[in-house]
Amino acid sequence: MEKGLKGNMLIAQSGGPTVVINQSLVGALTEAKKHKQIKGIYGSLNGIKGVMEERFIDLRKETSATLSRVAFTPCAALGSVRKKPDEQDCAEIFKILQKYDVRFFFYIGGNDSAETTNILNESARKVSYEFRCFHIPKTIDNDLLENDHTPGYASAAKFVAMAAMGDNLDNVSLPGVKIDVVMGRHAGFLVAASALARVNGEDGPHLIYFPEKPFSKEQFLKDVEKVYSKLGRCLITVSEGISDENGEAIASKFTKEVDTHGNIQLSGTGVLGDLLADMIKKELKVSRVRADTFGYLQRSFPGIFSEVDAKEAYEVGKIAVKYAVAGNLDGSVSIKRKPGKKYSAYFELVALNRVAKNTRSMPAKFINRQGNNVTMDFIDYAKPLVGTLPDIGKLKRYPVKKR
Amino acid sequence: MEKGLKGNMLIAQSGGPTVVINQSLVGALTEAKKHKQIKGIYGSLNGIKGVMEERFIDLRKETSATLSRVAFTPCAALGSVRKKPDEQDCAEIFKILQKYDVRFFFYIGGNDSAETTNILNESARKVSYEFRCFHIPKTIDNDLLENDHTPGYASAAKFVAMAAMGDNLDNVSLPGVKIDVVMGRHAGFLVAASALARVNGEDGPHLIYFPEKPFSKEQFLKDVEKVYSKLGRCLITVSEGISDENGEAIASKFTKEVDTHGNIQLSGTGVLGDLLADMIKKELKVSRVRADTFGYLQRSFPGIFSEVDAKEAYEVGKIAVKYAVAGNLDGSVSIKRKPGKKYSAYFELVALNRVAKNTRSMPAKFINRQGNNVTMDFIDYAKPLVGTLPDIGKLKRYPVKKR
Repeated sequence: MEKGLKGNMLIAQSGGPTVVINQSLVGALTEAKKHKQIKGIYGSLNGIKGVMEERFIDLRKETSATLSRVAFTPCAALGSVRKKPDEQDCAEIFKILQKYDVRFFFYIGGNDSAETTNILNESARKVSYEFRCFHIPKTIDNDLLENDHTPGYASAAKFVAMAAMGDNLDNVSLPGVKIDVVMGRHAGFLVAASALARVNGEDGPHLIYFPEKPFSKEQFLKDVEKVYSKLGRCLITVSEGISDENGEAIASKFTKEVDTHGNIQLSGTGVLGDLLADMIKKELKVSRVRADTFGYLQRSFPGIFSEVDAKEAYEVGKIAVKYAVAGNLDGSVSIKRKPGKKYSAYFELVALNRVAKNTRSMPAKFINRQGNNVTMDFIDYAKPLVGTLPDIGKLKRYPVKKR
Repeated sequence: MEKGLKGNMLIAQSGGPTVVINQSLVGALTEAKKHKQIKGIYGSLNGIKGVMEERFIDLRKETSATLSRVAFTPCAALGSVRKKPDEQDCAEIFKILQKYDVRFFFYIGGNDSAETTNILNESARKVSYEFRCFHIPKTIDNDLLENDHTPGYASAAKFVAMAAMGDNLDNVSLPGVKIDVVMGRHAGFLVAASALARVNGEDGPHLIYFPEKPFSKEQFLKDVEKVYSKLGRCLITVSEGISDENGEAIASKFTKEVDTHGNIQLSGTGVLGDLLADMIKKELKVSRVRADTFGYLQRSFPGIFSEVDAKEAYEVGKIAVKYAVAGNLDGSVSIKRKPGKKYSAYFELVALNRVAKNTRSMPAKFINRQGNNVTMDFIDYAKPLVGTLPDIGKLKRYPVKKR
C-alpha cells in the first residue's frame, strides 16, 4: 500500500523569502514529473492560506524555460504566508486536500513551517487521511535543528559578507563608527558571516554581536572605544536579535508587532541601529556615527547567491519527492556535513517534530570568549558554504619622503 | 610656458565613496605615466586633509597588478574627507604644494569637492602659484551641473534597481506596504532608478517620491491607499531628501548633524523610513508595513557596477590629465551625451565655478505630473547607463479547475 500510493501532489512555500527558495520548488517539481504515481502537480498560492482558499495552480503546465528562470529568481514564486493552522483550519484543509485528491504534500519553509507541516501531518493521522507529508528546509537564519546548515543561509551570508566588505571600505574612506544591523532572530549565523569580509589585517567588522550572548551596554561601549582609539574607526555588525540578560530583545523594547507564530517584528525598521548609534554619540563623544540596517535585501537581492546553496536548495526539493515516492510517510529533509577537510554534504530524512517549533543557536565554539567576535571554527564552517567573494584591491601606500 | 610646465602631480579623493571612484584614480595615474612633464605622481591620503598633514604616497611605485585590482574595488583607495578649506587652510596648502613642487593637482569628487578645487585654484591665482588644477567628477547623486550624468551614478542606480527588484519579489511573496529609502540629498536621480526594477505589469515600485516635489503627507497616504486597495500590496521608494513645501527635509526634523559644507546628515539612519511606516500603520490601518533604508550599500557594495560607468569613470580621470598636460589651466571634466537613439557620450572641459557649490535636480520631464512616478523620458535616459539587470522569472500560474 505505502509504496503504491497514487494521487496528486501539492507544494507550497512559507515564511520569509530566500534567494534560492525557488530552486527547491523546481527541484521537487522536476523530480515529481519522473514518477507515475504522482498525477497532478499543484502549487498552492501563499502557503496554507492558499490551500484554505483553494488557490491552486497547475505546475505541470509551466515550461522548462520558465522553470529554469524561476529557479534563479529570489523569493517565493508561489507566494508565501506566515500562518499557523489551528484545529479548525486543519479540518478545513483536509476536506480540501481530499476533494483535490492530494496524496503528496510538500511545504518549503523554516521551523515555523515545519511546525505547520507537523500539525497537518498529525491531524491527518487522526482522521486517517492517507497522504505523504514532507517539510523542505529553507531559512536564511540557519537555525533549523538537525541541520548542519539550511538552504538560503549561504546566499544571505554571501550578501552580508559582501555588504560588510563594501562598508569596511566605506569606513576606511570616511572614518567614524559604523553599525550594521543584520537579520537573525535567535541565531547569530548571519551576523557571524560578516566576518568573511575581512581580507587585510585591519579590516572590519571589528566587533560582532550575537543574539546568543547577553548584550551589555557597558561592555559594548568599552569594546567600541578600544577599537576606535586604536584605529580611528570602527565597523560593528550586530544581530537584530541581540537581547539583554533577561532574554528580552533590545529592538523589541521599541516595537510591539507580533505574527501568529508569536514572533516579534525585528526587521523592516531601523530603530535598533539608530539606538546604538545615539548611544555611541552621546557616551563616547564620537562625532561621526552611522547605522544601516541591511533589511530585506539580505533575503531577496537578485543575482547574488552561493553556488553551493543554489545546488543544495535544488537537491532538498528533489530528494523530498524521492523520499515520498519511496514509501516514506513523512519527515523533514536535513542537510548534514561529512567530516573531513574538503566540504561535502549529504541528506537525511528526520522526523518532523525534531525540526518543528524549536530553533538552534550558534555552537559555543563559533563565538569568542568576549562574545564580540567569531572564532576560526566559524570561518572554517562558513567559508565553503559561501564560496568566492569579490576581489578587494588595496594600494601599498609607499610614503613620499617628507620635505 | 603653459604647455611646458613641469613638476609633480598630486591626486586626491573627496566626499562620499562610489563603486567606481578608483577607476578615475587609476585612469589619471595611467595617463600621467605617459607624460614626461609629470615627474613624481603623489596621492594625498584623505583629500585636502592629507595635503595639510603632508600625508603623501608615491603612486608610481604601485604595481599595475595592484592598480587593476584597485580600479574594481569600491570606495576611495586614497581615503576621503568632507572638508571645505578656508583662507588660512589655502595659505597652508600652497606652502606645502610649493615645498613638494606640485604643479598638477586633481581632485576627484562631487560638487563640494569642485568647490574646494575652485577655492584652491582661485587662491593659487591670487598668490601667483603656477599650477594646473582639475576637478574629476564623481557622485552617486548625479547632481553635478554641466553633466548629463556623473561617474558613480549608474553603478549606484544599478544597485538600487536590483534592490527594488528583489524587494518587489519579497513584497509579492509576503504582501504588505514596503517603503525603501534611497540616497539623494537634493536630486531624485537615484530613487528614480528604482523604476528600472519593473519587468512585469504589476511590478513595483508602485510609487516613487522625489526631493524635487514638495512632499505632502495627505497626498502620500491617498496614493498608498489607492495602490494597496487595488493590488493588496504596495512598494514605495522614497528619496532621503524628500522635503515639505518650505523646502525642509522631512528627515531633517529628526536629526541635527551638519558637515562643514553645511549639509545635514540624511544617510546612516533609519528614521525617515520608520516615520513613514508608522504614518501608514496608524492612518491607513494597514497591519504589515515595513521600511528599509538602503544606506551605504548603494555607494560601496562590491561586485555590482555598470560597465558604462566603470569605463567612463576611468575615462574622466584619464582625460583630466590629458587636458592638464595639453596646456589647459584648470576646469572640471564633464560628461555630455550625443543626441540620437544609440547611447554615446563625450567629454568637455568646463569652468570650475560652473560645477562648484550648486547642484542640479531632475528635469521636470523625468517626473510625472502627480509627482509620484518617473516618466518614459527618465527610463530612456537611465537604461543605457545602468545596463543589464538580472533576469527575473515568473510562473505563468495556470489555475487548477475548482472542484
